[in-house]
Amino acid sequence: MLGRENAVSVDEARELIARHVPVRTPPVEKLEIGDCYERVLAEDLSSPEDLPAFSRSTVDGFAVKSSDTFGASETLPSYLNVSQEIVMGKESLLALKGGTAAKIPTGGMLPEGADAVVMFEHVQSVDGSLIEILKPVAPGENVISAGDDIRKGEIVLKRGSLLRPQDVAAIAGVGVQEVAIYERPKVAVVSTGDEIVPLGGPLRPGQVRDINSYNLAGLIFENGGEPVKKGIIQDVYEDIRNVVEESLKECSMVLISGGSSVGVMDLTAKIIDSLGSPGVIFHGVALKPGKPTIGGVVNGVPVFGLPGHPAAVTVCFDIFIKPVLSMLTGVNRKEFLSRRTLTARLAKNVSSVHGREEHVRVAVEERDGELWAIPVLGKSGLIRTLVMADGTVIIPPHKRGLQEGEVVEVELF
Amino acid sequence: MLGRENAVSVDEARELIARHVPVRTPPVEKLEIGDCYERVLAEDLSSPEDLPAFSRSTVDGFAVKSSDTFGASETLPSYLNVSQEIVMGKESLLALKGGTAAKIPTGGMLPEGADAVVMFEHVQSVDGSLIEILKPVAPGENVISAGDDIRKGEIVLKRGSLLRPQDVAAIAGVGVQEVAIYERPKVAVVSTGDEIVPLGGPLRPGQVRDINSYNLAGLIFENGGEPVKKGIIQDVYEDIRNVVEESLKECSMVLISGGSSVGVMDLTAKIIDSLGSPGVIFHGVALKPGKPTIGGVVNGVPVFGLPGHPAAVTVCFDIFIKPVLSMLTGVNRKEFLSRRTLTARLAKNVSSVHGREEHVRVAVEERDGELWAIPVLGKSGLIRTLVMADGTVIIPPHKRGLQEGEVVEVELF
Repeated sequence: MLGRENAVSVDEARELIARHVPVRTPPVEKLEIGDCYERVLAEDLSSPEDLPAFSRSTVDGFAVKSSDTFGASETLPSYLNVSQEIVMGKESLLALKGGTAAKIPTGGMLPEGADAVVMFEHVQSVDGSLIEILKPVAPGENVISAGDDIRKGEIVLKRGSLLRPQDVAAIAGVGVQEVAIYERPKVAVVSTGDEIVPLGGPLRPGQVRDINSYNLAGLIFENGGEPVKKGIIQDVYEDIRNVVEESLKECSMVLISGGSSVGVMDLTAKIIDSLGSPGVIFHGVALKPGKPTIGGVVNGVPVFGLPGHPAAVTVCFDIFIKPVLSMLTGVNRKEFLSRRTLTARLAKNVSSVHGREEHVRVAVEERDGELWAIPVLGKSGLIRTLVMADGTVIIPPHKRGLQEGEVVEVELF
Repeated sequence: MLGRENAVSVDEARELIARHVPVRTPPVEKLEIGDCYERVLAEDLSSPEDLPAFSRSTVDGFAVKSSDTFGASETLPSYLNVSQEIVMGKESLLALKGGTAAKIPTGGMLPEGADAVVMFEHVQSVDGSLIEILKPVAPGENVISAGDDIRKGEIVLKRGSLLRPQDVAAIAGVGVQEVAIYERPKVAVVSTGDEIVPLGGPLRPGQVRDINSYNLAGLIFENGGEPVKKGIIQDVYEDIRNVVEESLKECSMVLISGGSSVGVMDLTAKIIDSLGSPGVIFHGVALKPGKPTIGGVVNGVPVFGLPGHPAAVTVCFDIFIKPVLSMLTGVNRKEFLSRRTLTARLAKNVSSVHGREEHVRVAVEERDGELWAIPVLGKSGLIRTLVMADGTVIIPPHKRGLQEGEVVEVELF
């Protein structure tokens, strides 16, 4: 028996990562806000001005002193003289006197002296300059006051916010043009394997093309990192060690994607151990696919050794690497918002080995208004199972499988 | 009464859009696959080669003729001579003879004559060159045959596929370097309003900064389009008309974001009608926020007039613009995969007007392991309600509100 007997559970591996990977925030850069979509704010952003900067009407109508309308009704209206018409985007220099009203469009600036707006619907015109108010308005009614949206000095967005379109819009709204943004953490991808050849070269018998670095680069990018491809390295201790050592200096995390043979995984573990402390923190996980995964930390930088099978790469990324990468981006986000799940019925029985967490790839189909998760069967070495699948269903270690018809949660890719 | 009495329902507006907006696929560009993440494939991609190109072992073990192992057991093992060791990435030039085995690593190429691999776990070494097989293997066991993953000529990905990391990896795996990709559809953003000033300029009384074009640009980009900002245009018929006319020539969709005053919305409608057929298809929707929305089509190009309030912009984008933009990207994706929803309990009663679809912004919080949707109250003119919210809860037109504690579906931003 060639042993991976001391495989840890998924939870133990997670705990080892949490214990050994130090929390680090990335360096900060200044960016124009138009370049900040989906980036992470590196400062508590406080507003330099009131938004709006003045009291605005929220309806088309007449700006009034609200006290002039108290008691007004359809049978006993208040009569007001129209003293002016507010022009959009302009300040009225004429203060509103008692007993008068100013015609105002939605978004118009209230004249001094006015404290509410009566909607057109509650106004009857007597002649060009006299109107009847048919319904009273309370002070502040149909008005957004200066600073009602965002007050000067108020924190608009906190450090660690992942900037969505509306967040960038709010920053524009308070007149800020440049903000401090965390740099995308660099993640090195070291492809190893004597059989791996780059795209574009000829393919000789026994060789396969580099699949995993394309998968990993996409996963890193989608999760806020900047992939740094270090090329394809032959399975030679010194060669891999040199590239990993160089990567540790440049990057915030290092992923070594390689074969799944025991020899190659042992080589990877030896290299991680040789480069610094604590080195390998686990080697082998009770997980399918992804059993030979290696987790390590070298002088504070997380290093993962990933099995060569594409589906194992995707599963390990999701379970172990994504949370670490998320921490390295500096993002502060409710965990449940970053998950994408669907509830569906399992279309087929799936068996599983007791004591091992299994991730089953599934395609999701709608049949008669109900969602069904159809297991995509196939060895984890196949990239097609990942292409055909929409997500994964997790079978926890204490279960021996899932039944057809059972309601399952699908974690979408 | 200044009427928007002929407002259509949300479903009617959707139906009018479906009827009048023609299906168009965008132009095609050729891209290196490393630039294709999250882009849409514009061809049925067929594989130029078998993947893998040869039969590979999926385990560390010994390649054998399976017939040599039939009947083998712990008590009565088969004895085989180790005739060679397969080197990773190399073709073995030595065919396997009956009664012999070849040591092989995971991923190694099977020698001619071998049809299965016995795992190390089921092998006992007698001496350096003789082994005992303790368990039989079936033909093909622990082997991926040539083309098992993807066969030469097979369609790997269909036209319209949104390329995920694993899809790009599969394309790399079959040796394709460049693929046909749909260009991102250009969407013009025309900001109108006499009160709107660009970021960076001074803010005079009565003026507000351009918020909506930042919100729209982000929403367009996140949904696969390329925003084309046409600047801020004063509320002058000829000026807006010229910019919209120019935008119709350059772009696949035009969004006019402006005030919410009746006068300005009427101006927008008149301009859409003046530019071509059929012009305005609806003006006013039984929707909150978003009532003054205008939908139009000018010679096949969809044009939307959006109210100036930020929350209305977000809601209208989600309901009306996103599906049209999705069609314009050429993507072919199961609808339920593009939705991001959460189930939560409503933390507060929310009332609603009968006959109108209401979109309530909510923040989602976890309390004692349960998710709660907390309505973010405030007029739709406030950008802060969007910043504080994680998504929206929809109150359908036939309801008069939702009760505290009710289970609701939150559509996440």
